[in-house]
Amino acid sequence: MTLTNKQILLASRPTGAPTPSNFQLTETPVPVLQDGQVLVKNHYLSLDPYMRGRMSESKSYAKPHPLNEVMLGGTVGEVMESKNPDFQVGDVVQGFFGWQQYGVSSGKGLQKLDASRIPMQAYLGPVGMPGVTAWYGVYKLLTPKAGETVVISSASGMVGSLAGQLAKKAGARVVGIAGGKEKCDFVVQELGFDACIDYKAGNLIEDLAAVTPDGIDGYFENVGGDILNAVMDRMNPFGRIAVCGMISGYNGEQVPLKKPSLILTMRLKIEGFIIGEQPEIWPQALQELGAGVASGELKHHEVVTEGIENAPQAFMDLLSGKHFGKQLVKLHP
Amino acid sequence: MTLTNKQILLASRPTGAPTPSNFQLTETPVPVLQDGQVLVKNHYLSLDPYMRGRMSESKSYAKPHPLNEVMLGGTVGEVMESKNPDFQVGDVVQGFFGWQQYGVSSGKGLQKLDASRIPMQAYLGPVGMPGVTAWYGVYKLLTPKAGETVVISSASGMVGSLAGQLAKKAGARVVGIAGGKEKCDFVVQELGFDACIDYKAGNLIEDLAAVTPDGIDGYFENVGGDILNAVMDRMNPFGRIAVCGMISGYNGEQVPLKKPSLILTMRLKIEGFIIGEQPEIWPQALQELGAGVASGELKHHEVVTEGIENAPQAFMDLLSGKHFGKQLVKLHP
Repeated sequence: MTLTNKQILLASRPTGAPTPSNFQLTETPVPVLQDGQVLVKNHYLSLDPYMRGRMSESKSYAKPHPLNEVMLGGTVGEVMESKNPDFQVGDVVQGFFGWQQYGVSSGKGLQKLDASRIPMQAYLGPVGMPGVTAWYGVYKLLTPKAGETVVISSASGMVGSLAGQLAKKAGARVVGIAGGKEKCDFVVQELGFDACIDYKAGNLIEDLAAVTPDGIDGYFENVGGDILNAVMDRMNPFGRIAVCGMISGYNGEQVPLKKPSLILTMRLKIEGFIIGEQPEIWPQALQELGAGVASGELKHHEVVTEGIENAPQAFMDLLSGKHFGKQLVKLHP
Repeated sequence: MTLTNKQILLASRPTGAPTPSNFQLTETPVPVLQDGQVLVKNHYLSLDPYMRGRMSESKSYAKPHPLNEVMLGGTVGEVMESKNPDFQVGDVVQGFFGWQQYGVSSGKGLQKLDASRIPMQAYLGPVGMPGVTAWYGVYKLLTPKAGETVVISSASGMVGSLAGQLAKKAGARVVGIAGGKEKCDFVVQELGFDACIDYKAGNLIEDLAAVTPDGIDGYFENVGGDILNAVMDRMNPFGRIAVCGMISGYNGEQVPLKKPSLILTMRLKIEGFIIGEQPEIWPQALQELGAGVASGELKHHEVVTEGIENAPQAFMDLLSGKHFGKQLVKLHP
């Protein structure tokens, strides 16, 4: 029996927001395994904002994704066939197979997962890269002290929702910024943030002032643009800004930072980071995050799109902020 | 004999660049000493850019200087009379008496200086606040490694000229930015920088690219504005920016930071600092700086204005970048 592997390729580079024509669905046969190889049936694909950056040719921290190759991305799935003694049929594994239903690997980079206490797709979210991103940004860069005020943008997103919960655990007063009432309600009522501002309501500056009466000590930056400027204006002396994402920069329009002199007058520390470059903190972070998810202390929200054909639309929805929480694609019916 | 103390007061707050009308010269009698007090004849006053910030009412790291009071500033001088057992007539001391010829003190905040190996006014420059500022910015924030490229703005100023020499000592390739050929020649020929760009020549971006072929790893920021934007565009991954001053912000005009997303894509660390808030590093810094000045290894340049009456003009010249090196006022004929 020859299996057919549905894949989505990067067909062209977007100039602004991605469109369906940037993606192409193809079908190829799954190759016969060589000695040492493993065949994985990918159950879930993770969709993340960083993918937008890789679709462009612009100068970035990573090389642009090649055209006409399978879109990159993290996946979890199950070993279907193995000619590698380290893996058994039925093993649940995490890989980086991208937007495709099956993947063949030498085993390098493939990690076996314990899916007995938490579902496999949690390793793509709270117990994976987004979780570690939140953990590093909060505990290593923002280092909130009890009573300090921490603001989180994209608060209902996977990284933001975890960052806020971790800052809360450290004793900070946590304020989220999100787009729309539904997201804000989720952030406050489900995740336990102290407050949340709907930036789409049109009163960002006034609303932010109202919920940060003592100023802002730490800011987990996921968006950039006008929100960064509004937050900068309320930073306290010795404030820290962890720059994890700047979505508004990905599509080419760049909103300037209006008052750079605040960096001096408020003695701010602003630091950009890419979590893959901090390997030394992963084991501790994953252990703490796994325990938090298994116990139910760390909450998260998943949006699952059914079918690989629908991945491009789901990705466009992610970038436009249509849903919130962890965005996953279920790759098989 | 009653001594007359010439003082310069802050008469009004400048809106843009300071003008002579912002200052007022007065004369008052030196008061009779009380028990525990010390009378100091101030020989030299230090002029520094931070004073401009204190003249304004704008939100800053320090409270605005009160109107109709003696302008603030660091001084060195000699004890003339003492009713305090800790000080003897003839002691050379550093204080913060401001723009006046004499000062009376309880002794608190007054530091005895060893003027046997280095002249007393060196304690206002390379072996004082400017020197420690350079030392902290370079060794604690930029942490240059051998072979890295470090850029210093206001390179011919007191802080910049020392920062460059310290970065050079750490093995970095050091590039200065200064206004005019004379300053650039000084920076390269006298201080030993590897290169210097004259930003007034009108080709900042091209000139900076030419002398930083391997990009920029560390930037000692003294000015802000267009120079910061030009440097940002050439920062290497994991680059550090120590924000020590932003002269172009002091007068109200604020040049935006054009591409904040570089903080993320280049994983930059940007940190503002005020050296008075880092007391723990002063002893080590002063010891190393004192040794460097005494041995002649650390070079510096002084501009001495004669007469307290001329202090306002000297200060305006400092802000407009007319001279370079440490700006001092000799307070007595």
